[in-house]
Amino acid sequence: MTGESVRQDAPVIGLEDVRAAAVRLTGHATRTPVLTSRTLNARTGAQVFLKCENFQRVGAFKFRGAYNAVSALPPEQLARGVAAYSSGNHAQAVALAARELGTRAVILMPEDAPASKVAAVKAYGAEVVSYDRYTEDRVMLGEALARDGGLALVPPYEHADVMAGQGTVGLELLEEVGPLDAIVVPVGGGGLMAGVATAATGLQPGITMIGVEPELGDDQRRSLLEGDRVRIPIPRTIADGLAIDIPGELTFCVNRRLVSEIVLVSDAQILDAMRFLFDRMKLVVEPSGAVPVAALLSGRVELSGKRVGLVISGGNIDVQRFVALLGASVGE
Amino acid sequence: MTGESVRQDAPVIGLEDVRAAAVRLTGHATRTPVLTSRTLNARTGAQVFLKCENFQRVGAFKFRGAYNAVSALPPEQLARGVAAYSSGNHAQAVALAARELGTRAVILMPEDAPASKVAAVKAYGAEVVSYDRYTEDRVMLGEALARDGGLALVPPYEHADVMAGQGTVGLELLEEVGPLDAIVVPVGGGGLMAGVATAATGLQPGITMIGVEPELGDDQRRSLLEGDRVRIPIPRTIADGLAIDIPGELTFCVNRRLVSEIVLVSDAQILDAMRFLFDRMKLVVEPSGAVPVAALLSGRVELSGKRVGLVISGGNIDVQRFVALLGASVGE
Repeated sequence: MTGESVRQDAPVIGLEDVRAAAVRLTGHATRTPVLTSRTLNARTGAQVFLKCENFQRVGAFKFRGAYNAVSALPPEQLARGVAAYSSGNHAQAVALAARELGTRAVILMPEDAPASKVAAVKAYGAEVVSYDRYTEDRVMLGEALARDGGLALVPPYEHADVMAGQGTVGLELLEEVGPLDAIVVPVGGGGLMAGVATAATGLQPGITMIGVEPELGDDQRRSLLEGDRVRIPIPRTIADGLAIDIPGELTFCVNRRLVSEIVLVSDAQILDAMRFLFDRMKLVVEPSGAVPVAALLSGRVELSGKRVGLVISGGNIDVQRFVALLGASVGE
Repeated sequence: MTGESVRQDAPVIGLEDVRAAAVRLTGHATRTPVLTSRTLNARTGAQVFLKCENFQRVGAFKFRGAYNAVSALPPEQLARGVAAYSSGNHAQAVALAARELGTRAVILMPEDAPASKVAAVKAYGAEVVSYDRYTEDRVMLGEALARDGGLALVPPYEHADVMAGQGTVGLELLEEVGPLDAIVVPVGGGGLMAGVATAATGLQPGITMIGVEPELGDDQRRSLLEGDRVRIPIPRTIADGLAIDIPGELTFCVNRRLVSEIVLVSDAQILDAMRFLFDRMKLVVEPSGAVPVAALLSGRVELSGKRVGLVISGGNIDVQRFVALLGASVGE
């Protein structure tokens, strides 16, 4: 943040790592479309580009980081297999990456993970182990699981290869639409933001990176304001992918340098954004993936006159949960 | 159908009309993305390409035909304005085309049209007149409306310029993905099929054109089997865009020559397809737009080993109707 460079502020990854990930992902990850909406432009006054990672394999950006990390393992480790802990999308991502690379995957998932996500992980051939995310520490459980089975732990964000893989979202976005004034990114553990911010500021120094968190899960915002990682109670929010209590160490090391601002959105604003994406853009987006649209539509971030990229991070919400979340507010 | 060419079998439109429409539509209609799904390929054994007209302006392919027809009007007629009758998407399409071309639009809509469609038409600045589609003849009403107001009637499908505009869907699809073995198209009045079939068979003689109708609205299928237009009772189906009692004269003249087969799908199969498109492809598709996917997933059409294009014709279903249609079957 200042000219006094300290060790923890040294870049964890650089643009060249993201470029290397892009090469590894070619032919494996989907180069997702960038969509626009005249209505969204009219409502926000901005020129908005949606990078649609809901169309990514496994339905979320997580496949990029997982595939990049698993494919980078030494052959003998790859042969033994991988383990992961995840509230959902990362689980599917590691399961699919392992299957494609011909190895075993054991996934630690919270008991209250959406049924569709658990089923999808099993369908990719992975073994699933459950835990209670309100009482148990998934990091410790995951590390024990990996150690006991001789498996390589693929963390959801605390890993240079994972962050570099997620960064390819930013690389593709800027390659496709050209220079942007700002990019707005959902922030959970911070891996997507760290990767995209590394790619975007590397390609275009001075670009404004804006993170979005749910109001009840504002650990990144507090941490950035504090200048150090702040732990909050595990948040309960419909944006389950962003229900994180403390930023990652590595991701925070990147994001404290590169992120301009974190804005907060309420669950009601997220539902409004999901309804807008459904009705006006014909897109199925999960709550965590809709927070950038929520931030713009609600006015929590004001980017009138700017060229703005939004990362729509995932679309893994099944019909049942969609109806439960949005059915109640129908007919108002 | 035979070598004995008769007057009514002369082509109503040709590939050159579709190409001319494509030029007019450039910069006005969205060049919609073609999406693929590994899951859909795996389930059907085919290589499937979805031409996603749910991302078209006004949420459906109808904008192409409407804009092409309105923009082709003589200046003095364009200045007086246009009228249209429609169960929904065509109404919005004509309203938007009129607004963009700076003229007046009066739209005749059924009383039971989805509220979101009526609201959208009004939002485009058009005047709306209601009628009962079970007791009144929309064609006669529409003609009277046009005559009395000095307006040019833009029919939803019985017009060469409308068919040519819809044909650009087929042109873009084949330009983007290369040769296909078959294209599967929803059939209501038959304008989309007539246009796409003209473009596709023009570019690639011998391509198989397959239409899909709802089981209860099988007027095209009966007409093709009969060799002449057959009228059925107005069908009640969730695919409201396909609830047509008799094929158009002009469209049937084209389709009898170019369409290989019409297959039928049930409302339950349409709902299954909508759920698949939502859960697995993150796409919001209206019932009428989902019938090609319903035909493939249900096995009503078997195209294993083939390269197949599906026209996803529209996405105009609001959250409220989606919940009403799919909420009931949740949790089974």
